[in-house]
Amino acid sequence: MTPARFEVIGKAVPKRDGAEKVTGRTRYLHDLDVPRMVHGAILRARFPHARIRRIDVARAACLPGVLAVITGQDVEQHPFGFVKDQLALKRDTVRCIRDEVAAVAALDPVTAREALELIEVEYEELPGVFDPERAVEAGAPLVHDGLGSNLTPLRYQFSHGDVDGAFARAAAAVEDTYALSFVTTACLGTMAAIADWDPEDRLTMYSTTQVPFLYQKDLAAALGLSGDRVRVLQPPVGGNFGRGLDLYPIDVIAALLARRVGRPVKIEFDRMEEFVGSPGREACTIRLRTAADRDGRLLARDAHVVIDNGAYVSWGSTTPYVMLSTVAGLYRVPAIRFDTTIAYTNNPYSGSMRGYGNLESTFAVESQMDDLADRLGMDRLEIRRRNASQPGDVTPQGFTITSCAMTECLDAVTAEIRHDAPSLVPGWQRGVGYAGMFHVGGGARIYRSDGCGAIVKVDDFGTVSLITGATEIGQGSETVLAMIVAETLGVPLERVTVVNSDTAVKPWDVGAHASRTTFIAGNAARLAAEKVRADVLRLAAEQLDEPVEHLDVKRGDVFVTSDPRRRLPYDRVVRSGHLRPGGRPLVAEAFYDPPTAMLDKDLHGNVSATYGFAAQAVMLDVDPATGAVKVQRIVSAHDVGRALNPLAAEGQIHGGIHMGLGYALSERLVVEDGHVLTSSFMDYAVFKAEDMPETIVKLIETVDQEGPFGAKGLGESGVIPVSAAVANAVKDAIGVRFTELPITPARIHAALRERRP
Amino acid sequence: MTPARFEVIGKAVPKRDGAEKVTGRTRYLHDLDVPRMVHGAILRARFPHARIRRIDVARAACLPGVLAVITGQDVEQHPFGFVKDQLALKRDTVRCIRDEVAAVAALDPVTAREALELIEVEYEELPGVFDPERAVEAGAPLVHDGLGSNLTPLRYQFSHGDVDGAFARAAAAVEDTYALSFVTTACLGTMAAIADWDPEDRLTMYSTTQVPFLYQKDLAAALGLSGDRVRVLQPPVGGNFGRGLDLYPIDVIAALLARRVGRPVKIEFDRMEEFVGSPGREACTIRLRTAADRDGRLLARDAHVVIDNGAYVSWGSTTPYVMLSTVAGLYRVPAIRFDTTIAYTNNPYSGSMRGYGNLESTFAVESQMDDLADRLGMDRLEIRRRNASQPGDVTPQGFTITSCAMTECLDAVTAEIRHDAPSLVPGWQRGVGYAGMFHVGGGARIYRSDGCGAIVKVDDFGTVSLITGATEIGQGSETVLAMIVAETLGVPLERVTVVNSDTAVKPWDVGAHASRTTFIAGNAARLAAEKVRADVLRLAAEQLDEPVEHLDVKRGDVFVTSDPRRRLPYDRVVRSGHLRPGGRPLVAEAFYDPPTAMLDKDLHGNVSATYGFAAQAVMLDVDPATGAVKVQRIVSAHDVGRALNPLAAEGQIHGGIHMGLGYALSERLVVEDGHVLTSSFMDYAVFKAEDMPETIVKLIETVDQEGPFGAKGLGESGVIPVSAAVANAVKDAIGVRFTELPITPARIHAALRERRP
Repeated sequence: MTPARFEVIGKAVPKRDGAEKVTGRTRYLHDLDVPRMVHGAILRARFPHARIRRIDVARAACLPGVLAVITGQDVEQHPFGFVKDQLALKRDTVRCIRDEVAAVAALDPVTAREALELIEVEYEELPGVFDPERAVEAGAPLVHDGLGSNLTPLRYQFSHGDVDGAFARAAAAVEDTYALSFVTTACLGTMAAIADWDPEDRLTMYSTTQVPFLYQKDLAAALGLSGDRVRVLQPPVGGNFGRGLDLYPIDVIAALLARRVGRPVKIEFDRMEEFVGSPGREACTIRLRTAADRDGRLLARDAHVVIDNGAYVSWGSTTPYVMLSTVAGLYRVPAIRFDTTIAYTNNPYSGSMRGYGNLESTFAVESQMDDLADRLGMDRLEIRRRNASQPGDVTPQGFTITSCAMTECLDAVTAEIRHDAPSLVPGWQRGVGYAGMFHVGGGARIYRSDGCGAIVKVDDFGTVSLITGATEIGQGSETVLAMIVAETLGVPLERVTVVNSDTAVKPWDVGAHASRTTFIAGNAARLAAEKVRADVLRLAAEQLDEPVEHLDVKRGDVFVTSDPRRRLPYDRVVRSGHLRPGGRPLVAEAFYDPPTAMLDKDLHGNVSATYGFAAQAVMLDVDPATGAVKVQRIVSAHDVGRALNPLAAEGQIHGGIHMGLGYALSERLVVEDGHVLTSSFMDYAVFKAEDMPETIVKLIETVDQEGPFGAKGLGESGVIPVSAAVANAVKDAIGVRFTELPITPARIHAALRERRP
Repeated sequence: MTPARFEVIGKAVPKRDGAEKVTGRTRYLHDLDVPRMVHGAILRARFPHARIRRIDVARAACLPGVLAVITGQDVEQHPFGFVKDQLALKRDTVRCIRDEVAAVAALDPVTAREALELIEVEYEELPGVFDPERAVEAGAPLVHDGLGSNLTPLRYQFSHGDVDGAFARAAAAVEDTYALSFVTTACLGTMAAIADWDPEDRLTMYSTTQVPFLYQKDLAAALGLSGDRVRVLQPPVGGNFGRGLDLYPIDVIAALLARRVGRPVKIEFDRMEEFVGSPGREACTIRLRTAADRDGRLLARDAHVVIDNGAYVSWGSTTPYVMLSTVAGLYRVPAIRFDTTIAYTNNPYSGSMRGYGNLESTFAVESQMDDLADRLGMDRLEIRRRNASQPGDVTPQGFTITSCAMTECLDAVTAEIRHDAPSLVPGWQRGVGYAGMFHVGGGARIYRSDGCGAIVKVDDFGTVSLITGATEIGQGSETVLAMIVAETLGVPLERVTVVNSDTAVKPWDVGAHASRTTFIAGNAARLAAEKVRADVLRLAAEQLDEPVEHLDVKRGDVFVTSDPRRRLPYDRVVRSGHLRPGGRPLVAEAFYDPPTAMLDKDLHGNVSATYGFAAQAVMLDVDPATGAVKVQRIVSAHDVGRALNPLAAEGQIHGGIHMGLGYALSERLVVEDGHVLTSSFMDYAVFKAEDMPETIVKLIETVDQEGPFGAKGLGESGVIPVSAAVANAVKDAIGVRFTELPITPARIHAALRERRP
């Protein structure tokens, strides 16, 4: 199909939930009020590492309005988490400042929080370890006594080609260690959960999860139930960005409290608790070496990643899965060595966060592309072009590149970044930086099924309902999936309703992550809609007395292609097909699981059905006197396969750039000696609207062979290269290579002063 | 299948929503609170017939907290109703005391009602007509000026065989005119609606409707929208009994108010408004003649029904559709004449109500069975046995009787009614009365589709979701549909979840009426579950390496029939089928529309796929001194095809008997000169628990060939024969034939005094 043939696809369609949201009508989980609901609150550890000697809840339990106080000792619970290393309510020992020690249910949230103050906990403080390198040294305090070491069971090792030989014969090699801080998702909607048991001991959870079926399984296991006893409802959330990818204690505790008091229990974090209690992006260091020949062709990369795992393992420590993909796949590199050290510490633990390891590794890899070019005296863009991936490439891990417009992305940002540039304030110094991006674009098989189901039904009035497994977390999936169904069926978009928020209703999906929803859920929706379309044409063929092949359906009408005046509204076709002897309304279902493989034990396998590519250019000005940075412009070019909804695609990229600029220049969750010092948006410097640069997005369409209408995922690609491009621009401006984020004015100022001798 | 083979079917299963309801957890529509919701109230007519001269809303609109006041003049509305003869907010003329003149939206319900008092309406009172016989006389005031007559467009005429000849040669003939009063459904949950427009001008209605898809269509039309712009949610209701079968002004007004104020609007009736504003059972008279030969064989019936239509046509005036079925089908009758006069009056209009015409006609028909027996000197049971329908019969309308245990039902109640009877209080007189019942049992095609859809999905944890078109109105459909799916799939009942309350989610169904849900929705659920069962067996065959034909699934395990130790839990089978290359979870859908026909213009056609039969015997004692009646015992025998859930089947019959006893002996909505005088449960005498007799239910299983597991519908059959059996028992006790209901102590006392002279 050529773009001209599309009626819905490719049009700029505002997000369908946009009007609801901007008019204040959206009923977020926080706004929900279930009958008889009471409120829960969680008491957290006072020390990052301590033995719990005694908990006295008597005074709290006596506070009027308090219905229950529970501790780890008096509820049945089962270990959960990525390696099942934590209980929701801790027993005996607290291992980080986030640790849940007791919980209260009360008639109102104020009373619940007041009761927390009345719980007396006697601790025996233990020595803590707050640095992963230190944690693996002999004699370091053990975070988990029983393990005998602070090494987590996670290790990602990969080797391909002759790395040492490559470095030996390289014309140039660079090496640095890159340090990345903890950051938080800064969702405007904090973490929240409502747990509601029915009289048959079945649990309904209102959750901010973005993996509802995996959550159903994990929550049931943590409570000692079978998965079929948990139903998950997903009201609208105020941001998630990966935060909802794992099960966390808030959900388990809400369920335990609700069971104890026999009433629904809601727990929601306030902003301060969100900084301490919600999982963000992991702190890590990446030691990276890159070698190139005299022409600038990459010969090898060698990386070692050290991750501060915190007290328990969650998805933050699995990010090397993606870091490796970048080290081995961003540009052509024939030889790779990759290893990790992932160590328990007494810091809070991290989860999955948009970009998921790729911001970190791209920061390292793309910093070295510039440094290599400088070392070789090459143009920074030329070294990238020379190494750019091409269709047909297979990465050392076995990722098969099909559609790929890496070179075109580089060209697009180059063409635009310096065009008609704003004038420079006298005394400031300007720099331009570039970075590329490589990410999964057709799902990522991290679970045995990477599939999604879809059901499409059409009623007598032409309402088309898509019941999809997909999860909407603000990314616009409802809109794009409705567009796919409307285009496939040939009906106006406003006739399509999307249903997607109840595990009892919706078919399986592995969740919203890895930029997979448009691709995977989109393909499922398309397949189900194609079945309904075939039914509509078959019915219309009878009604118009024409062969099916002579018919088409567009803008809600079925018509004879050779004589378009002979036409019937599709809803009439459907109604006539129903309201007749032996008739029936139309319902069809489909399931799409991409033709991919999980990584094998050697981290080899084609995990995604296609891959996304992008390039960014950043123009920024630095004030050497103060270290202040003003980002003037960012150009972001993306190989999106096809832009199904250009407005939403641009929106995703704008949002990613916003998050990436914070990561590059201003955001840092300050954790010192295990204590979270950041406590408000006064401390945690998210980029404000007025800080945002001019942003130019270029959508490059390669029309992927496997994607729905040729689309590929792009939910994460906007955020990934930003910090690398910014760091390269800063170096371009002032000649200083920063290997640590965020690049704050204080750091710039200090670096310039140091250089000045 | 023999009953012994069933694991779930035939077991007494408590209603699944029972625990929720008795523990106060059920969230009825009344309990719902939508964000930003405000409250509506309706101003009704002060006179049953009047011209509206002027409405001044200025004072009401100024009351603090009032957001809008609307009248018929200032909103866009479209006629609706069975013959499209009313607007939700009346213009110019009010035609009954229920008529809606204005409506208010306010921040709280008290303010809304207060504002009603501030609306000034100037009326010019018009002469009214309150009796349908009077209404069709020349010179009667016209309810609808423009029509030129008070005759509604509805008329039901049927003729079959030589009626006059039959009466001419009859050995006995009886004739009477039976008078039936208005009664109300007396639902504990009053009528209520919440209307919520989204920013795209799509309407979500939270409704007590029991025909959600027809309601979607009708409401959209009344608002001038296409049906696809209305989504209907059906929260739990506190009773419906047919009240939810049509669209009524409350729904339209809630939508109009909500559109006006730009916020969701809830309207709920208080008890007083419910008596005035909710549709109940129509008042009518039935002139009936029956002829029999000397052996007591029926020769002919001749009926003329006069219905007080009230001011607008709703379903109450369509009840002759069923009255005719009874006149022509309850017992074998070779010749039939049937006609109706359905006249507008200035009374409130009636809707559909459980039993739907059949209580009325059965009261007449069964009174005459006794009177004929008396006239012929025959035994009252013998005359019934001699005329009882038998399998293979075809009624004069063309109803094809398949399974039929009418004779067995008569035998069953006879055997039980006098067994070990309680002693009689001295001075009181005892009577025993009998009545039979004939009703649709396999749907009733009143719309072009009598079908229902079902979707069954199984997740990785063995949760089986049934998404059904069916509507739960307290009758227990969720429970029996879950049982059908559990039995078909061979899984424990508690693994099955039923989803059924959102038109955007559920597949088409014509609604909860005509005792059709177990039969129609049950067959749809069974068909969808059979597809999933086949998939489960196919997957298990691969996993167990056995041919499918060697496998069975029961109690959640798939096993080799010849070696039952070789077994796999079904959820593991499903999970393994999903979590493998090319795998997928299981989803299937089905649609069932019974092999029936709509009545043609001559009222001929086989409207139901099967028919239900029942007989009741009532033993009661009358105190001649006071006219008091004490019902001692009622035995109710029902041909149910198969009792899928005997507990629920008995519950339905108990509930029906309760409603029937009120109709027979105590309930009457008093309407005088167009005014509803009944205003509370002090005036409206529903049978109290302590008034209820010993109730014995006999379920007779004929295993219907078309029903799901052999079942037939029985939702209405308990209520239908009660008033006839009671009247016959009263005649047996004191020798007086009552032709008017309710048979109150005052009426008995008056009749006995009259006879005494």
